[in-house]
Amino acid sequence: MAEVFRLPTLQLDSGRTMTDVSVAWSSRGGLNAQGDNVIVVCHALTGSSAADDWWGPLIGPDRALDTNRFFVVCLNVLGSPYGSASPVSKNPETGEPYGPGFPAVTIRDTVRAHRQVLEALGVRRVLFALGGSMGGMQSLEWAFEDDFVDGIVPIGVGGRHSAWCIGFSETQRQAIYADPVWNDGQYTEQPRQGLATARMIAMLTYRSSGSLTRRFGRRPQEGAEDMFAVESYLRYQGDKLVDRFDANCYVHLTRQMDTHDVARGRGAYEDVLRSMDKKALVIGVDSDVLYPLAEQEELASLIPGARLEVIRSPDGHDAFLIEFEQLGRFIRIWMEEELRRPEPPGACAVRSEKFIGV
Amino acid sequence: MAEVFRLPTLQLDSGRTMTDVSVAWSSRGGLNAQGDNVIVVCHALTGSSAADDWWGPLIGPDRALDTNRFFVVCLNVLGSPYGSASPVSKNPETGEPYGPGFPAVTIRDTVRAHRQVLEALGVRRVLFALGGSMGGMQSLEWAFEDDFVDGIVPIGVGGRHSAWCIGFSETQRQAIYADPVWNDGQYTEQPRQGLATARMIAMLTYRSSGSLTRRFGRRPQEGAEDMFAVESYLRYQGDKLVDRFDANCYVHLTRQMDTHDVARGRGAYEDVLRSMDKKALVIGVDSDVLYPLAEQEELASLIPGARLEVIRSPDGHDAFLIEFEQLGRFIRIWMEEELRRPEPPGACAVRSEKFIGV
Repeated sequence: MAEVFRLPTLQLDSGRTMTDVSVAWSSRGGLNAQGDNVIVVCHALTGSSAADDWWGPLIGPDRALDTNRFFVVCLNVLGSPYGSASPVSKNPETGEPYGPGFPAVTIRDTVRAHRQVLEALGVRRVLFALGGSMGGMQSLEWAFEDDFVDGIVPIGVGGRHSAWCIGFSETQRQAIYADPVWNDGQYTEQPRQGLATARMIAMLTYRSSGSLTRRFGRRPQEGAEDMFAVESYLRYQGDKLVDRFDANCYVHLTRQMDTHDVARGRGAYEDVLRSMDKKALVIGVDSDVLYPLAEQEELASLIPGARLEVIRSPDGHDAFLIEFEQLGRFIRIWMEEELRRPEPPGACAVRSEKFIGV
Repeated sequence: MAEVFRLPTLQLDSGRTMTDVSVAWSSRGGLNAQGDNVIVVCHALTGSSAADDWWGPLIGPDRALDTNRFFVVCLNVLGSPYGSASPVSKNPETGEPYGPGFPAVTIRDTVRAHRQVLEALGVRRVLFALGGSMGGMQSLEWAFEDDFVDGIVPIGVGGRHSAWCIGFSETQRQAIYADPVWNDGQYTEQPRQGLATARMIAMLTYRSSGSLTRRFGRRPQEGAEDMFAVESYLRYQGDKLVDRFDANCYVHLTRQMDTHDVARGRGAYEDVLRSMDKKALVIGVDSDVLYPLAEQEELASLIPGARLEVIRSPDGHDAFLIEFEQLGRFIRIWMEEELRRPEPPGACAVRSEKFIGV
């Protein structure tokens, strides 16, 4: 189990105040006495705080995120079914799960909640916040926690969610809404087919034409010759998500991603990025269809002093969960050349040897 | 109304024989006495034989497809609701609409049916068959009608439907299947939401990230500030298709597209393309996400003597329905440099002055 921290209250961007807000978190490595050897790993849409599960090769002793030297912490986003307050958690005002009544939460709300948890854990300063996709959105928002964060590593993301991405989000929500048991989110059993279809659409956008050709081509599914292997693969991926996720959470989180816009309420988009005074390593994937490289090029050209690195991969957006060697190398070099070197944790520091999954 | 020709029988690739098979067709220009001044325009997934509706600027006197000189004919694909035999047409064996029992038809079956119609109209030789997307698939299959066709112009397509495209087809079908009124295709009213969602997915794949950013960005929908303009646009496009299409036809036609593979039963893929001895103009779109330029580059590199032209456009796959100036220029130059010049139709030839829509 992840640890769970409960915030007494959280003020949302919408003006609404949530009370008794759970935030699930996991960590590895130890916090130093200064509380400033902290790396925040931010997860994507269907991820959890158990970063070992999806970024294992990057985290550990002597790995890019070196748990001998750093306190590496990952916090579950609001609205996710993996331990933080969400449609499947209890609304303290009613004692029932929030369901579709879970409040509209922005990426900024999530980051603000996470900061409160880190401060309560004794963190004084974050070396950098990094993540891909929805994790990259959080990373970019961490840049605005001026007095608390040195650097950011947004991966496979832009400074604001594009019409293209919002469009794909919307098709996924519509697939869920079309499910006969959806019932405006007041379902008693999961709308399986709708959620599975949403995941199938998403899985395609996370890949590329080339990667699927290489893996499946026009091969028929073994034992089901009227079906292509790629169809069977997508159905399997859809069903797999249904068993571990929740449709209201999925709808909520895609909406939360759609709120992503670093400029909202802060001024003109380009000016906002130009005013960012963080160390920034922007990473893109050359075959990313969903968040094309042009978006990372834009970030790197506008954020002063930002470094751009490009993952070479046929695997599209998902390369940020696959190409560990390239990712690790980019992060190591950037840390070496641009970041401060905080004291490692003393022998007495509390250490976690492993991220524990939920 | 388009004209409708009825084939007494049609032998399908599946081995099944259909009887009394309607094929809707439209034409402009006149057939010459030799029956050899013929250009076949092939339509895409949701198109009809009324080519003026979707390729108007390319067709007419002195236009690229010059109706003073050529007999320009467009035939409706099997399985489409626009006049050819399809799930919404009557099964002669039962007197009821075929519905989901409409037989599995391949791109080759469609082309074979179309050839029979053209021969019945007095066509002896086709100068070239051209089309984009599903029309491009037909164009490629026309190349195998050896004794009947001089050239082909496949646009925004590859030599076989990719796993990527099959995957997107499958998500669209799954969205339809999830609709509560779908009922395995035995619906009494259209499964509106499922079909609309399918169309929304498709519309996105026909565009590109850049084109949607340019057109919509993060603009909220006027009068519905909790919705992005791009969401409203997609819903509108979805609803619009529901009013003019049929869900069983949509499922059938996406499956027909998935059968596209020039090599099926003919040998090794590359050898089959290398053995093609037609004049070929292959056209791609530089921003096409669905049928990436690599697929047209492959076609052009394998088909002996083929010419490759690239439409420069931010609008993705749909550029073949938008960039008429570039398309017209590519076609004119290729015709001028590579094709024979058939006699124009005599004064007595039957002429149609306009494609008439269905």
